Amino acid sequence: MEEIPGQTTVIVDTTHSAHAGLRPAPLGDVTLTDGFWRPRRLLLRDITLPTQFEQLERTGRLANFRRAAGQMSGRFEGLYFNDSDVYKWLEAASWILATDSDPQLKEMVDQTVSWIEAAQQPDGYLNTYYTLEHPSQRWTNLRDMHELYCAGHLVQAAIAHHRATGSTQLLDVACRFADLIADTFGPHPGQQQGVPGHPEIEMALVELARETGQERYLCLAQYFLDARGHGHLGHSPYHQDHVPFREMDKLVGHAVRALYLSAGATDLLIENGEPELGAALRRLWHHMATRQMYVTGGVGARHQGEAVGADYELPNARAYAETCAGIANVMWAWRLLLLSGRAPYADLMERALYNAVLPGISLDGQAYFYVNPLASDGQPEPGRELYRRQPWFQCACCPPNVARLIAQIPGYIYSLSEDTIWIHHLIGNEAQLTLPSGDSIQIMIRTRYPWSGQVFIEVLTAGSFALSVRIPGWCAHPEPRNRPTVSVNGEPIGGEVVAGHYVTVRRSWAPGDSLCIHLPMPVRHVAAHPYVLENTGRVALMRGPILYCLEGTDHPGVDLRDITVGDHTNYDTSFRPNLLGGIETITASALVTPPEDAWRNALYRPVATDSRTGRPTSLLAIPYFAWANREAGAMQVWLRYVPA
Amino acid sequence: MEEIPGQTTVIVDTTHSAHAGLRPAPLGDVTLTDGFWRPRRLLLRDITLPTQFEQLERTGRLANFRRAAGQMSGRFEGLYFNDSDVYKWLEAASWILATDSDPQLKEMVDQTVSWIEAAQQPDGYLNTYYTLEHPSQRWTNLRDMHELYCAGHLVQAAIAHHRATGSTQLLDVACRFADLIADTFGPHPGQQQGVPGHPEIEMALVELARETGQERYLCLAQYFLDARGHGHLGHSPYHQDHVPFREMDKLVGHAVRALYLSAGATDLLIENGEPELGAALRRLWHHMATRQMYVTGGVGARHQGEAVGADYELPNARAYAETCAGIANVMWAWRLLLLSGRAPYADLMERALYNAVLPGISLDGQAYFYVNPLASDGQPEPGRELYRRQPWFQCACCPPNVARLIAQIPGYIYSLSEDTIWIHHLIGNEAQLTLPSGDSIQIMIRTRYPWSGQVFIEVLTAGSFALSVRIPGWCAHPEPRNRPTVSVNGEPIGGEVVAGHYVTVRRSWAPGDSLCIHLPMPVRHVAAHPYVLENTGRVALMRGPILYCLEGTDHPGVDLRDITVGDHTNYDTSFRPNLLGGIETITASALVTPPEDAWRNALYRPVATDSRTGRPTSLLAIPYFAWANREAGAMQVWLRYVPA
Repeated sequence: MEEIPGQTTVIVDTTHSAHAGLRPAPLGDVTLTDGFWRPRRLLLRDITLPTQFEQLERTGRLANFRRAAGQMSGRFEGLYFNDSDVYKWLEAASWILATDSDPQLKEMVDQTVSWIEAAQQPDGYLNTYYTLEHPSQRWTNLRDMHELYCAGHLVQAAIAHHRATGSTQLLDVACRFADLIADTFGPHPGQQQGVPGHPEIEMALVELARETGQERYLCLAQYFLDARGHGHLGHSPYHQDHVPFREMDKLVGHAVRALYLSAGATDLLIENGEPELGAALRRLWHHMATRQMYVTGGVGARHQGEAVGADYELPNARAYAETCAGIANVMWAWRLLLLSGRAPYADLMERALYNAVLPGISLDGQAYFYVNPLASDGQPEPGRELYRRQPWFQCACCPPNVARLIAQIPGYIYSLSEDTIWIHHLIGNEAQLTLPSGDSIQIMIRTRYPWSGQVFIEVLTAGSFALSVRIPGWCAHPEPRNRPTVSVNGEPIGGEVVAGHYVTVRRSWAPGDSLCIHLPMPVRHVAAHPYVLENTGRVALMRGPILYCLEGTDHPGVDLRDITVGDHTNYDTSFRPNLLGGIETITASALVTPPEDAWRNALYRPVATDSRTGRPTSLLAIPYFAWANREAGAMQVWLRYVPA
Repeated sequence: MEEIPGQTTVIVDTTHSAHAGLRPAPLGDVTLTDGFWRPRRLLLRDITLPTQFEQLERTGRLANFRRAAGQMSGRFEGLYFNDSDVYKWLEAASWILATDSDPQLKEMVDQTVSWIEAAQQPDGYLNTYYTLEHPSQRWTNLRDMHELYCAGHLVQAAIAHHRATGSTQLLDVACRFADLIADTFGPHPGQQQGVPGHPEIEMALVELARETGQERYLCLAQYFLDARGHGHLGHSPYHQDHVPFREMDKLVGHAVRALYLSAGATDLLIENGEPELGAALRRLWHHMATRQMYVTGGVGARHQGEAVGADYELPNARAYAETCAGIANVMWAWRLLLLSGRAPYADLMERALYNAVLPGISLDGQAYFYVNPLASDGQPEPGRELYRRQPWFQCACCPPNVARLIAQIPGYIYSLSEDTIWIHHLIGNEAQLTLPSGDSIQIMIRTRYPWSGQVFIEVLTAGSFALSVRIPGWCAHPEPRNRPTVSVNGEPIGGEVVAGHYVTVRRSWAPGDSLCIHLPMPVRHVAAHPYVLENTGRVALMRGPILYCLEGTDHPGVDLRDITVGDHTNYDTSFRPNLLGGIETITASALVTPPEDAWRNALYRPVATDSRTGRPTSLLAIPYFAWANREAGAMQVWLRYVPA
């Protein structure tokens, strides 16, 4: 069908394409202008990455490479998987350099790359723990010792470094090591059988195959997936070795392992299109998203084993919800989104990004949560300090992981397929995108999202193509005035705009043509499934994609557990630029309803209807991601709720 | 005041005596006739203890002693603290032999005692792990290696053996070892400083002092208590070393450790009367009983670290509630009861005995729960089998512990003070008790408790003394017809009978005089404190001291999570002699109210008032202690509750 300039075809996509074939827009083609994300990403460059580099140096993580290279003496320092933290930092720094040059950061990156290169053994092997401590015991304990996990992070860092700088220095190192691994492991005679105890290299190898065109890396990733669940890891559920991957009904065991594995398997599915694998991944994701996920998008109910937990097992104060698991959930959903073009995956990415990943780092960019509870009494527990972000950890997986995820934000906004530009995330930017046809399209997005639902998209280049924009699932609303609308050059588009789907506008665009999206953002009372026992009779406050919480410091003299909201609670919202880096707050008059006196000395007693009387209090809710950035105190996400 | 025969003085005790000075009636003076407990105790003799002996032999636990004695070759087998399982078994068997002779059991006991004796080193040391594996490393790791813990269990076994048999064979062994320990540890110059990583020996040493009159054992126990909290265990909260004991506000860390320590401290308090220690113990117990305890009387919310948990942290399906912690709670409450004569301690003993200890052993006496969840979906979790009792465990602390507790039941019924016989537990028996005055009193109790609240107490010997009988706290009830009554020789006593207190009847008793207690047992809807999040909008069914639950096998096709009861639910009860060894069942017509369809694919969604429609179903509740004795399936204690 010939496109007539100015003529618009609108498709509200509700179908599921088995393989949408979306390709991510290169991160370097997108320049953030966003009021929310650009300062956060620049904070990485200016504060987070330099301070993390100091921590890497202070803790011997960088020295381990210099020692393995023979440049300095001494034994291996720290935990045996500490190389991976260096690689993750390097990946984060590379993604930053891809868009924002910085001489000091570049020097740190160059130094680090040279130390890594120097630590590589003549045959390509690269792991400072084994090289320094047990050179003869390489590959003798794949289950526990994270050699392949570290290798995976090296490969990912190398790809980022190559894409950011054009240099092949680190990519060559990574390929040499990957070649050694591909020689060593596999199903062929003379090769060692085995799978990594911590998945990660699967994603890395698929991407390395994409980067280099070398199919052997893809085959190795496929081998690691297929060999899993056959006892190489003792049939351990913690390691997802209890059954072959395609037979899994739900995620079990260590949450980050389970999610990394699923993300790697999705990468393989994108390449091999295997139906059985596709069915398994859809089943696992659906189960996770409807049974095993916090309202934050975080995963991991159990401290014990850092594990996923049983269906609907989602305690609040005892949530584990490791920051890395929230990151992994974004990574997995992104791959499923590229595969399918379905909005629920992007919705989940968004949920986890704002509410599970972002809480992992302090507003000043120098402290991190490893564990992300949804409630806290603010009291330090003997032996732990879960309720405050820490400047570093002995096991420091989360800090550089949150950095590398935020560094990649520009790469998550768009993807491309045939003649379509997909807009997955509503983040301000200017981009120069190249369609598969070769056409180069300049486009920009302006928005105050997530604080406002007004999104202005302007096409700056003439061209005939489609814009496919996600209408978030959260803006489904029964009242017409709260439903999303889309207009082209000021004219509302025909057809209903359906939340949780992409709206596709196909036309011949003239420079200056615009798409205006309006997503109303009333405060929402969100309930959890009745089987999530801790949230019975409770609601969480959400506005747009943002989950809110209460902090004790804003409610002096009130036990947050006693604050009760209901259908008649009237919420006001306002942007407070000087609070917590600038946030939209929610305020209301709510009730404080403490337990009745009869409970003072009783833990169990005959049931009686609690009176619903209470005294009024001023409720102030802040975004959950911003909690614990002021003085220590209580925090609560799920509030008591009385319908009427 | 002269007592006039037949004249009765009734005291409903509501005061708290700081030191009531109750002395337990010797276990051997009490002969169980009870329909509930006597068969269970005989099952120990006939099934449980012989099969446990086989397990001790099969797993090398007994062979370790023969090896350490040089009677056979080979290295130490099993876990380094396995000696303690032998001692606990021996204690249980001894208490049985104290009342019920059995030649086969006696032979096992004699053999075991001789092996233990032979394994003792010339200087008195006795620990087969260290003797066989690291003879030169005694006492080098008090925190982790359980040497003093094992020693404590040896002492307790020896005291039981001495009391049961009159033989000093094992007591001499224990004293030799205790002497070595008292020489080794203490505050004096030349002595080693340190405290046990797992409390237990504190209780044992106090009892050994009582048994032998040797004050040095008391001093050693006092040293171990006082030295704690000063960093010998690295200030670890897991080991209750974070602060000195008297400064603790609440139990923290490993539940069994915390409770054993508290029980040992209470033993010391009974002996030393130290006010500060008394204040600490009352504070800790009150906090536990009102913040940290399951409705079963079990303790331990966390799998991780087998730990107590935060205030009100009491998950159901993820309860840990180790059987040993329930046992420890009984042991601690017993000591507080002896100290104070206050009914709440006996109430808690009763609660834990029926609902936290008894579930630990199967009705056939051959399988054990280590972990005691309050809900189960009946699905095996990969890598665990928590939902079924097991015949043994690698760490087998619970099986012999539950045996030694049930074996001691006759000793928990009565205690004595001045001219008063205290009846703490309503269990059928015939006893020949000796008052401190020297008067010997024959007394018997007849009852179908816990299935019936009719308790008939008959005095068979003339004498002037008081009977102080606990009126359980559970029978507090707003309706007069459901209130407890007490009559003497058929005549209701004057004064109100108050639940949760002892009623004291002082008179000159003639043979055949009787006390008749009537405790109405309606089915009760019990609620949990509003801060126990998982139980919001839920009730547990209780009747008398017994907690009930639902099992899936009695509710085919129904998800137990959907069963809803309310104020109008009419309960019937009936005794079914052929079900689960004979139990009182609760039946009712209840509603099944599954989650609405909108929840099918959602974990979080805008709050909406769930409709309260449902289909009727027949509810059958069984005692919680009897669950998991039929085919595997779901189980639920806390039921959805809609008031009206």
